[in-house]
Amino acid sequence: MTLPRTADTLDAAALRDRIQTLFDRSGLMRHLGARLGEVAPGRVHVHLPFAPTLTQHLGLFHAGATSTIADAAGGFAAMTQAPDGHTVLSVEFKINLLAPARGESLEAIGQVIRTGRTLTIVQVDVHALNAGKTTPVALMQQTIINVPDRTS
Amino acid sequence: MTLPRTADTLDAAALRDRIQTLFDRSGLMRHLGARLGEVAPGRVHVHLPFAPTLTQHLGLFHAGATSTIADAAGGFAAMTQAPDGHTVLSVEFKINLLAPARGESLEAIGQVIRTGRTLTIVQVDVHALNAGKTTPVALMQQTIINVPDRTS
Amino acid sequence: MTLPRTADTLDAAALRDRIQTLFDRSGLMRHLGARLGEVAPGRVHVHLPFAPTLTQHLGLFHAGATSTIADAAGGFAAMTQAPDGHTVLSVEFKINLLAPARGESLEAIGQVIRTGRTLTIVQVDVHALNAGKTTPVALMQQTIINVPDRTS
Amino acid sequence: MTLPRTADTLDAAALRDRIQTLFDRSGLMRHLGARLGEVAPGRVHVHLPFAPTLTQHLGLFHAGATSTIADAAGGFAAMTQAPDGHTVLSVEFKINLLAPARGESLEAIGQVIRTGRTLTIVQVDVHALNAGKTTPVALMQQTIINVPDRTS
Repeated sequence: MTLPRTADTLDAAALRDRIQTLFDRSGLMRHLGARLGEVAPGRVHVHLPFAPTLTQHLGLFHAGATSTIADAAGGFAAMTQAPDGHTVLSVEFKINLLAPARGESLEAIGQVIRTGRTLTIVQVDVHALNAGKTTPVALMQQTIINVPDRTS
Repeated sequence: MTLPRTADTLDAAALRDRIQTLFDRSGLMRHLGARLGEVAPGRVHVHLPFAPTLTQHLGLFHAGATSTIADAAGGFAAMTQAPDGHTVLSVEFKINLLAPARGESLEAIGQVIRTGRTLTIVQVDVHALNAGKTTPVALMQQTIINVPDRTS
Repeated sequence: MTLPRTADTLDAAALRDRIQTLFDRSGLMRHLGARLGEVAPGRVHVHLPFAPTLTQHLGLFHAGATSTIADAAGGFAAMTQAPDGHTVLSVEFKINLLAPARGESLEAIGQVIRTGRTLTIVQVDVHALNAGKTTPVALMQQTIINVPDRTS
Repeated sequence: MTLPRTADTLDAAALRDRIQTLFDRSGLMRHLGARLGEVAPGRVHVHLPFAPTLTQHLGLFHAGATSTIADAAGGFAAMTQAPDGHTVLSVEFKINLLAPARGESLEAIGQVIRTGRTLTIVQVDVHALNAGKTTPVALMQQTIINVPDRTS
């Protein structure tokens, strides 16, 4: 038996609400000042405006900040494809930092590459926005596992 | 010509001061409440006490928080081996989340595996401390590049 | 219900036989000239004697050869911990090539780090043997999934 | 001073010859029966027809075979962008095995994502061809280092 996927059971507005609710439950997203962007079946965007609270020792966005929003965008993208009654956990991810992450904000775009019964594979692009210019700063591959949701 | 490594030119106290200075310049470390632990040549510990500002949607430590202190511990471990006049940047890392990260605090231990002229390879273990018990929660492999330090 | 693990149901000789049988079914292991080494619960060694058929363009062991025996050692290590009636597949792996892989042979040692119901996390070290000297050449983190075995 | 890239100094036919020459020097490519496909600046294809010598214990393409041609396609793609007088080595790669790799052949397509002075970041897609149908079977992120070529 195959359970319907979250994105199959909800219309666009309800899907966004569902992801927004999970996003708002994440203390770290709020603490970093991250905001949920576009939500579509299999694809979620997360924005992170620059702040001095997000930097490494050279004043750039810390790789930890970059990878946090990448992990979040990927996890929520996977969540749109999770079977009914399930939530998601990151199994692992690998991120390449492509360029110094400087600018007014970062945007992470998580895109589901493969949906399995148990595992979802996601790719995440992160770019920096600076003075109207977009620069790729990171590329991630992520493995997500669907687990029964006992919280709802 | 091979430049001396940071850890070769400084005694234990000076090495710790050097890393503490860099740690204190990182806005994200302070914002998350992370603290620098042990510092030795090729090995650095970072602690992260639990706070509701560090959680994902289920109330556990967010994978982004776990990977941020892992990236920091690894980067500072590599920094102890950087050639004189150089600083370090993360090229990439890969992290497996081994178990739900819950507890009073996390500790990340970065250990240099190989020191090259340009690249340093680091392994990072993260464990959770909970009621006197230690649980491994993440394992990272990280690639670091030495770059000339233009800030000092 | 938790199924017993392969290594719990077999004594040392039977465990080795089980892994040897799977090893011998792998056409690629034979084609490369790889040999099964030590087998213990959660740990498997694979050896690869040098041959000109295993090289990259500079005459060193090809990273593909290194990662093939690493993947095999890790997969078989996970297999010793697979639940009864299950076999294993690689979900993903990440490998750092630490040094040029030259020498008389390579040895990959796969060691299970964490055993879950569905996923097993493995770490693999590969070193080269050359004139009595051992050099680490690669380090791998690998995620393995247990799947029902329909072949036996 | 920035050295010209290999692909800037050679026309299409000469670039292909250059990569074909390196490909032919790789004993492992020949031993596995791999063939060089398309070569363009920043992009290289490698084909691998199925053979029983390439299998794992279930008779599918071994993950080691898949990752070997992925590593090769990525490395040669990076080679097209290497500075004059340089060759390339794999620093590390991470591969997700997306689906069982079965079919008449595999094709790996390496595409350079970012070209730096020292490091090149590559993404590699691998798909299986079976009865006229194409299935994605693997996705890789790879870090390559340029090193002075002392062989030519």
